[in-house]
Amino acid sequence: MTKALSLHKKLKGKIVIGSKLPALSPRELSLIYTPGVAEVVRYISEKSSRVYDVTIKANTVAVVTDGSAVLGLGNVGAQASLPVMEGKCALFSLLAGINAFPICLATQDAHQIVQTIRYLAPVFGGINLEDIAAPKCFEIEGELQDLGIPVVHDDQHATAIVVLAGLINAVKVVDKNLKKCKIVIVGAGAAGNAVTKLLHAYGCKRLIVVDSHGIISSKRRDLDIYKTFLGTLSNLKNLSGNIEDACQNADILIGVSKRGLFTSPVMQALNKNAIVFALANPDPEILPDEAKKQGVAIVATGRNDFPNQVNNALVFPGLFKGLLKSRKTALTDELKLTSAIALASLVPNPTPEKIIPSLFDKNVVPTITRAIVQS
Amino acid sequence: MTKALSLHKKLKGKIVIGSKLPALSPRELSLIYTPGVAEVVRYISEKSSRVYDVTIKANTVAVVTDGSAVLGLGNVGAQASLPVMEGKCALFSLLAGINAFPICLATQDAHQIVQTIRYLAPVFGGINLEDIAAPKCFEIEGELQDLGIPVVHDDQHATAIVVLAGLINAVKVVDKNLKKCKIVIVGAGAAGNAVTKLLHAYGCKRLIVVDSHGIISSKRRDLDIYKTFLGTLSNLKNLSGNIEDACQNADILIGVSKRGLFTSPVMQALNKNAIVFALANPDPEILPDEAKKQGVAIVATGRNDFPNQVNNALVFPGLFKGLLKSRKTALTDELKLTSAIALASLVPNPTPEKIIPSLFDKNVVPTITRAIVQS
Repeated sequence: MTKALSLHKKLKGKIVIGSKLPALSPRELSLIYTPGVAEVVRYISEKSSRVYDVTIKANTVAVVTDGSAVLGLGNVGAQASLPVMEGKCALFSLLAGINAFPICLATQDAHQIVQTIRYLAPVFGGINLEDIAAPKCFEIEGELQDLGIPVVHDDQHATAIVVLAGLINAVKVVDKNLKKCKIVIVGAGAAGNAVTKLLHAYGCKRLIVVDSHGIISSKRRDLDIYKTFLGTLSNLKNLSGNIEDACQNADILIGVSKRGLFTSPVMQALNKNAIVFALANPDPEILPDEAKKQGVAIVATGRNDFPNQVNNALVFPGLFKGLLKSRKTALTDELKLTSAIALASLVPNPTPEKIIPSLFDKNVVPTITRAIVQS
Repeated sequence: MTKALSLHKKLKGKIVIGSKLPALSPRELSLIYTPGVAEVVRYISEKSSRVYDVTIKANTVAVVTDGSAVLGLGNVGAQASLPVMEGKCALFSLLAGINAFPICLATQDAHQIVQTIRYLAPVFGGINLEDIAAPKCFEIEGELQDLGIPVVHDDQHATAIVVLAGLINAVKVVDKNLKKCKIVIVGAGAAGNAVTKLLHAYGCKRLIVVDSHGIISSKRRDLDIYKTFLGTLSNLKNLSGNIEDACQNADILIGVSKRGLFTSPVMQALNKNAIVFALANPDPEILPDEAKKQGVAIVATGRNDFPNQVNNALVFPGLFKGLLKSRKTALTDELKLTSAIALASLVPNPTPEKIIPSLFDKNVVPTITRAIVQS
C-alpha cells in the first residue's frame, strides 16, 4: 500500500465539519437553534443580502466536479473523484481559512450540472468548478456567470494566472519582451484555452495553439466553437502543421497536454534562450534535465520536486479569498492580470531556477487576496 | 438586537470546515493532493464501496431543505433558512461527531429537489430532509428510498420516535396500556403523519387524526393521498367532527399543529389521567400550567423551559450515527420502534415531570446509536 493510500485509510476523510461553539449548554442551544434562530431567519427574510453577515455564506466555497477530467486519470466519475475534491477543500482551509465543501455530482450532463449549481447557490459565496472536461467546462462556466456569486473553473483560470506570472519573471531572466515573444501553447483543453486567452489579454499577439490534431488554424474543419475562437486569438499567419512546425523560432513553449510530447526535434526548433513550461501532471511533457540538455534556458513544471513549480495551487486560495472578501460576482480578465502581476512581484529578482514563489511562501495568499480586493 | 442575532453576527456562520491535517508540508501536500491522491482515486475506481474507507462519506450527512416550512415561520425560502440548517449541522457535530453540511435549495419543486439530491449523493452517507412542507416532503422522501443511502425526513421520523418514547413512559406513570389508549393526533402534516404511522406500527389501534378541517374520515372529500392513508390507520368508527368531538374520552392528546388549539372544552373532553403532548414550537397548543389546571396528569412540550421536552433533537444525532455506522440504506419501522424503546429505557422510573431524558444527557446518543446498529 502506498503512503498516500495508507494515510487516507487512517484519516477516513481529510476534512471535518465542526461547530464554532465548542460545547452546548441549554442557553447556547436556544441561541443557535430554536427558538433563538428564528430571529436570524427573519433578519435575512427582510433583506436577503444580510445572509452574508450572519451565516457561513461569506466564507464558503463549493468545489464542484462531475469527475469527468480528474488529474491525469480522466473520467473516473463522481465517487472516485471525492479524495481529490477533499484534498482541494483541505488546501482551501489550510492556505486561506476558507470553508470549502466537495460537491461530486452523479451527472455529467452540462445542463443538469448548471441547474444543480443554481439550486445549491444559496449556501455558497463562490463556486470552484474542478476537474470538469473540456469543452463542457466552458459551457457550464459561461452559463453560470449570472449567478450573483463568482463561478470559476480553477483548472482554466488559476492555471492561466500562474503561467502568466511565471512568464513575466522568466522573460526578465532572458531579457526578452513577453508581448513580443513567439509563444506556442500545446494543449487546447481547459488550461490551454485559458492560458491562450489570458496571454492575449496581457498583450501577447504572437501565439500559436496546438491540439492533438496539430496547429489550430482557420483551415481546420474539426474545431468546436471554443477552439475556433482560440484560432481568432492566435496564428496570425494561419500556419498549419504539427508541434515541431509550430515551434520554429518560438521563444516560449507551454505544455498543458501530456507526457513525452516535447521531443528532441521540438526542442531544437525553439529560439535561443527558450522558456519551456512542461505542465502535464504528474508526468511533464519533458523532464527539466532533458530540456536543459537541449539548450533551453528556463524550465518549469507543475511538480514540487523540480524548481519552478507552476501550479494552480499558488493561485486559487488567494483568488477565492479576494473574491469572497470583496464580494465580487465574477472573475474578470482585469482581475486575472492583476493577480498574475502581483504573484510575479513576489520574486523581484528572478533566476533560471526561481521564477515563481513557493507554494509554502506565506506571502502568496495575502498578496493575491490584496490584488483582487484592491481592484 | 436580540442575543441570538448578536451571536450570529459575531460568529458569521456556526460551522467551520477544517483540514484533519493541521499543517501543510511539501510531503503532506503530495500525499493529500497531487500526485499521491491519484492512488486513492484509482483505489475507489476499482470498487466504489471503498469510498467509505478513505473519504468523508461514511460520516457525512447533508441537511437538505427548500426552506418551505422553516420552524414556525413557514415558507421563508432557501436563503433565510440557512441559519436553521447551520444550527442543525452544529448539533450533528456537537452531539454525535457527524460532519453535516447545509444544502439550501433554490427550488421548491419536488421533482427538482429529488433530482438534485440524486446528483449530490456521492459525497454523503445519509440525507436529512429538513423543514420541507407537507405533502411534498412525503413525495420527496418516498422517491428517494432507492438511493442506496438513508434518506430521512427528520421532522417526521425523529419526532415520531421521540413522541413514542415519551408515551411509553407516560402511560407507565398513569398505569395505562398504550396499545389500548384512545389517542388523538391534532395536525396531519409531516409530524402528525409520521406519529400516526409509528403509533399504529407500535400497536395502537384507537387513533384519531384531526387536521384543520376536522376529523380525518372516509367521508371527507378534501383529502390528499397521504391523509387518505392516515384515515385507513385511524378512526375505526369513522367519526366526523372537530377536535372537541375527537377528544371525547381520549387518554392521550398529541398536538403537532399550532398555538392555542387546546381550549378548555377540548381539555374537559379528555379521559381521567390524560396525557397531553403540546408540541407546536415555539408556542405550544396549550401551556403546561393551563393544562394541569384542567386536570391533565402529564404534559410535554417541545421547549426546554418546561419539564418533558419532547424534541426531535433527542433523536436525530444518534439515529443518523447508527444508520451511518451500520451502513443501513433505509430507516425502517422496526428501527424507529427500537429507537423509541431504547430512548424510553433511559428513564426507568418515569414521573409526571420526567418521562423523557434531557437533551444534555450523555447517554442519549450512544443508546440510540447502539439500538440502530444492533438491529
